[in-house]
Amino acid sequence: MTELTHPNINDGWFRESTTLWPGQAMSLKVEKILHVAKSLFQDVLVFKSTDYGNVLVLDGVIQATERDEFAYQEMIAHLPLNAHPDPKKVLVIGGGDGGVLREVVKHSTIESVTLVEIDEMVPQVSKQYLPAMAAGFTHPKVNVHIGDGFAYLKEHTGSYDVIITDSSDPVGPAESLFGETFYDLMRRSLRPGGIICTQGECQWLHLELISTVLTNSRKIYPVVEYAYSAVPTYPCGQIGYILCCNEAGRDLKKPVRKFDEEFEKTQLRYYNAQVHEAAFVLPGFAKRKLEA
Amino acid sequence: MTELTHPNINDGWFRESTTLWPGQAMSLKVEKILHVAKSLFQDVLVFKSTDYGNVLVLDGVIQATERDEFAYQEMIAHLPLNAHPDPKKVLVIGGGDGGVLREVVKHSTIESVTLVEIDEMVPQVSKQYLPAMAAGFTHPKVNVHIGDGFAYLKEHTGSYDVIITDSSDPVGPAESLFGETFYDLMRRSLRPGGIICTQGECQWLHLELISTVLTNSRKIYPVVEYAYSAVPTYPCGQIGYILCCNEAGRDLKKPVRKFDEEFEKTQLRYYNAQVHEAAFVLPGFAKRKLEA
Repeated sequence: MTELTHPNINDGWFRESTTLWPGQAMSLKVEKILHVAKSLFQDVLVFKSTDYGNVLVLDGVIQATERDEFAYQEMIAHLPLNAHPDPKKVLVIGGGDGGVLREVVKHSTIESVTLVEIDEMVPQVSKQYLPAMAAGFTHPKVNVHIGDGFAYLKEHTGSYDVIITDSSDPVGPAESLFGETFYDLMRRSLRPGGIICTQGECQWLHLELISTVLTNSRKIYPVVEYAYSAVPTYPCGQIGYILCCNEAGRDLKKPVRKFDEEFEKTQLRYYNAQVHEAAFVLPGFAKRKLEA
Repeated sequence: MTELTHPNINDGWFRESTTLWPGQAMSLKVEKILHVAKSLFQDVLVFKSTDYGNVLVLDGVIQATERDEFAYQEMIAHLPLNAHPDPKKVLVIGGGDGGVLREVVKHSTIESVTLVEIDEMVPQVSKQYLPAMAAGFTHPKVNVHIGDGFAYLKEHTGSYDVIITDSSDPVGPAESLFGETFYDLMRRSLRPGGIICTQGECQWLHLELISTVLTNSRKIYPVVEYAYSAVPTYPCGQIGYILCCNEAGRDLKKPVRKFDEEFEKTQLRYYNAQVHEAAFVLPGFAKRKLEA
C-alpha cells in the first residue's frame, strides 16, 4: 500500500498555505496522514497530529482539530441559541463535520435541526476520522441535506428560529456566503424574532471584510453584532461570529436563556453565560471600526 | 559585508522553535535579518517581516512584533494600573524593549517608573529596531537599571504601588520568575494596597503551570486573579496575566480608574474599561481549573 502524501506536508509537518493571511503560517506536527482526496468542491485532507488530535484541512486551511474544535462549535451554536427565547427549528449551512449539530441538540427547546452541506465528502471523512464531532449526525432531531445553501434557503422561507452558517473562508466554495444576497436570503428564511450567526473571520486579519459584511447586514437587519472567541489553530488564534436579528430592539449580547451550572460544568468546555457577554467586548482598534 | 543568517530562518521564513509548545510552530515571512547575536543571557534576533513589521526574538521565541505588540503592552500595564486607585511608584522587571514603560507613563498619577532588565542587549536592539516601543525609555519619569530582578527586589522593600513582570517564558533567564520565592519578593517590595501583574503564559498550553503559580500565589497574597488577551504572534494567539494584590477584599477585575473616552480613542488600541472586565472571564475549561 502506497503511503499517503500531501503538498502541505513535508518533513513530518503540515504547514497551512493560503493567500488569505500572507506572511504567516501555522504548522502542526504530523503523526500519520489519514485521508487525501479531491472532492467535487475542494481539496480534503485529514491527518493525525502529534499534539492536536486528528485535523481536518480543506484547501490547505485548518478547519478543525480534535483538541480545540470545542471553542468554535460551542460559540457559533450557543451565542445565537441562547440569545433566542425559544429556538425550535434550526438550520445549519455548512458545518459538514457535525460539530455544530452536536452543540445545537444540547438545547431541549429544539424540535428539529437541518444541516445543508454542499460537499458530501466532509460528513463522510468526519464520520470516519472525527467521531466526537460526527456524533452530531446521530441525534434523532437531525436531518441532513447535501446541496447548495442558496438553493435551500430560497425554498424555505419563514421557516427557522436560528440559522447558523458554519463556512470556510471567503474563497472557493464559501465565497458567496459572505455576500449581501446570502444575508438577505437568510433573513427571508427566518421566522419572526429569528437570529442568524455566521463564521465571521478574524478581526486581526480581515477587519475591512468584516466591516463590509456588517455594513451590508445593517441595511437588512435591525440588529447586527460582532463577537469572537479564541480558537488556537485558526489564524491569529481567533475567530469571529456575526449575529443578526430580524426584530428591532433585541439585545443579542446577553443570553436570554442559560444552561444550568451543572450542565455547563459537565457538557461544555468553552461557552458559559459570562463568556457569552464577554465575547462581544471588542478591543479598541476593532470597536472603532466595527460598531455602528 | 556578509549577509546575516540565523538557524530559525530558512527559505525566507522564520520559524519558532521551542520545547514549550510541542507539535506546533508559528512562521513569519522574513524581508531582512537585522540583528543576530548571543548576549550574555540569550540568543537575540531581530528581523524585518513582510507583514508584521520588525520582530524581536529571544532564544527562538517571538517576544514582540510591531504589528501586534500593543495588545500585550497595554494589557500588562493598564490592568494593574487601573485596578489601583492612585499608582505613583511603579517597577517593571524585564520589559527591556520599553513597550511597558511607554504604557505606564500614560497614567498621570505616576511619579516614577523603574525598569530592571537583566540583559542590556534588549534595550539596545529595541532602541535601534523597535523605536515605537523604545519610545518608553525617553520619558523623564523613567529610570533604567541593568541587573537582576531578584537582587533589586531584595534591596527595595515596601517601595512600589505596582510591580509589572514582563518576562519571557519559564526557561532560560526567566525560569525563576515563575517561582514562589519571586512572588514573595515582589510582595515584600509592594507598598500597602499594592498590585503585581506578571506575564502569565497561555491557558491553552500551560494550564497546569498557571494553576501551580496561582495556587502558590494564593498562599502569600489575599487576592489572586488570572486575565488574558489576544496576541496573534504568541503561541495559540493568546497570553495570560497573573494579578495579585496584598490587600484583602480588593476587586482587580473592575477598573477603579478609567481613561477618558477621547484618550482611549487616540492613545490606546486594545485596552478599554470594558476590555478590562472581559479579560477576566475565563472559558469553562480554564475557569474550572484556575478559579479559587
